Amino acid sequence: MSLPTEHKVWVLANPPAAYVQPDTFALETRALPPVADDQVLVKIKYLSNDPIVRTLISAAIPRGGTIATSGLAEVVASKSAAYAPGDLVSGRFDWGDYAVVPATALTGKAIELPGKPYASLSVLGLGSLTAYFGVFDQLKVAADDVVVVSSAAGSVGSAAIQFAKHVAGAKRVVGIAGGADKCAWVKSLGADDCIDYKSPDFRERLAAAVPDKIDKVFENVGGEVLDTILPLMKPHGQIAVCGLLSSYNGQQQVFNNLLQVISLRIDVRGFTVMDFVPRWAETAQKVAQFVKDGKVSATDTETVVTATVDEIPQTWALLFTGKSRGKLLTQLE
Amino acid sequence: MSLPTEHKVWVLANPPAAYVQPDTFALETRALPPVADDQVLVKIKYLSNDPIVRTLISAAIPRGGTIATSGLAEVVASKSAAYAPGDLVSGRFDWGDYAVVPATALTGKAIELPGKPYASLSVLGLGSLTAYFGVFDQLKVAADDVVVVSSAAGSVGSAAIQFAKHVAGAKRVVGIAGGADKCAWVKSLGADDCIDYKSPDFRERLAAAVPDKIDKVFENVGGEVLDTILPLMKPHGQIAVCGLLSSYNGQQQVFNNLLQVISLRIDVRGFTVMDFVPRWAETAQKVAQFVKDGKVSATDTETVVTATVDEIPQTWALLFTGKSRGKLLTQLE
Repeated sequence: MSLPTEHKVWVLANPPAAYVQPDTFALETRALPPVADDQVLVKIKYLSNDPIVRTLISAAIPRGGTIATSGLAEVVASKSAAYAPGDLVSGRFDWGDYAVVPATALTGKAIELPGKPYASLSVLGLGSLTAYFGVFDQLKVAADDVVVVSSAAGSVGSAAIQFAKHVAGAKRVVGIAGGADKCAWVKSLGADDCIDYKSPDFRERLAAAVPDKIDKVFENVGGEVLDTILPLMKPHGQIAVCGLLSSYNGQQQVFNNLLQVISLRIDVRGFTVMDFVPRWAETAQKVAQFVKDGKVSATDTETVVTATVDEIPQTWALLFTGKSRGKLLTQLE
Repeated sequence: MSLPTEHKVWVLANPPAAYVQPDTFALETRALPPVADDQVLVKIKYLSNDPIVRTLISAAIPRGGTIATSGLAEVVASKSAAYAPGDLVSGRFDWGDYAVVPATALTGKAIELPGKPYASLSVLGLGSLTAYFGVFDQLKVAADDVVVVSSAAGSVGSAAIQFAKHVAGAKRVVGIAGGADKCAWVKSLGADDCIDYKSPDFRERLAAAVPDKIDKVFENVGGEVLDTILPLMKPHGQIAVCGLLSSYNGQQQVFNNLLQVISLRIDVRGFTVMDFVPRWAETAQKVAQFVKDGKVSATDTETVVTATVDEIPQTWALLFTGKSRGKLLTQLE
């Protein structure tokens, strides 16, 4: 088989002032370099669609720059001892069809789950890894803990609920989510209870759900949700702050109960998945084992949209229509 | 010498709705019980005046109840092997002149500094102990740390500044206080710099004072001061929250920079001196040694007002006139 000598790649043609426009991105055809020692030629198969790309094209990617995201690709030719043609590999790839990359820039071979060759981008992806490091490294959730997880129906929160209940075996795990449907799903994942933060008696319901008070909080929201949690903590309780969803559009964070941090001697600590990069690969393997053992659900965790290279930007834009459910992946034809 | 057979003691006669009134307290004369085994008879010499008494007489002390505060007393008669007549002892005593108390209820013998028999209530009192546990146990301040202390001219903050700089030997110690006079005093105690939070360019000045960013914060204020500190922290910086002065009258705490807790992975932890009760006595001895070694100033740390037993409530009320400086002590004639 002859190898391709050129490839298609999307570039940022016109950084948008507000909404993404038809001329925001442009598709270029470029010559592919030959594969040098310790490099591989790959065909890109799956691309992760992430909201942060919207920020990057306004703030970080230069005009004419390419759009790199997490993805999976099949090795077509290899001058690396680590990879052979046919391997499905994980890494960061430009929006496009083919690429020549150093083998050291790849994360490793993709971990496949039954029926899910793309699992490394969804149930074994960064949301689950974030949940893993939060539950096990930051909070060290143990069997006698009462744990609360906010934004419990999100990709991070839903994994945290399952790790806390089914792997760490916490005594009581309570989710916080928006709406009855989401709460029902969170309970189906194993939460002992789930409270709708939109209900008028949120505080009373949450208090009733944790009669023995809270040891540990996996916090993704902040603001009023966190303020409601504070007085329900046990002395010396821990809060791992993973996200502040209530603040991402620039809103102030307002607290009435911050004195509880002193009176209850609460430990509030921020963390990000970026602190654990060297452990991503081994941890994805662990999470895959949890799925195989039935401790973590891999059902309904992604929406996979088949697309041509020409359709990559439109598929990414589906993120902002609110119509995809779970992780949105592009599968390249 | 014959021992007294009765004593005077102040009781709460009429809990006040708002301001303390002339009939709020009443002085009673009561019979003194004989000294039983393991008890001592003491003459009260010094009383600590604390704002919390205002809260207690509205919320906790029943009508007819006595008013107990930290104090120092001289042992007049003893049936305890631990104390002999003439000993100056530390403990909690009712507003009054004499008392019979169990020896086990006393904290120990007072630690006296030259010219300051009452040092256990001021420079060796709870403010200094709070600073000690914050600097050494919570923050573990070390030689290569850049440390910021808020409310640095207060009894806790001024001790924290000195412990961090002169005992822990921190590379850089910066205070935050209100006004040029207070900042000058904080610098005279050893701070490398002190920033007036009332200055219009507070943020820029604080940033300029910590060009290498902040490792550790001893936080007594919260609110806008804490919000200004957050973006100036180093990754994995620590904040020990001892007080939230900006919140004690029920104000909300508003933050614009709380996302920094995640992006900088900051550890925010509350503590109180009550967590360290078993170590109070030994720690007061350590602080006394710091004073003797010239590492901590004992100058201008208290206002001592001489009073008769009849004048105890009026002397305490001086707290609310803003006219006393440093710790306000009553010395009974």
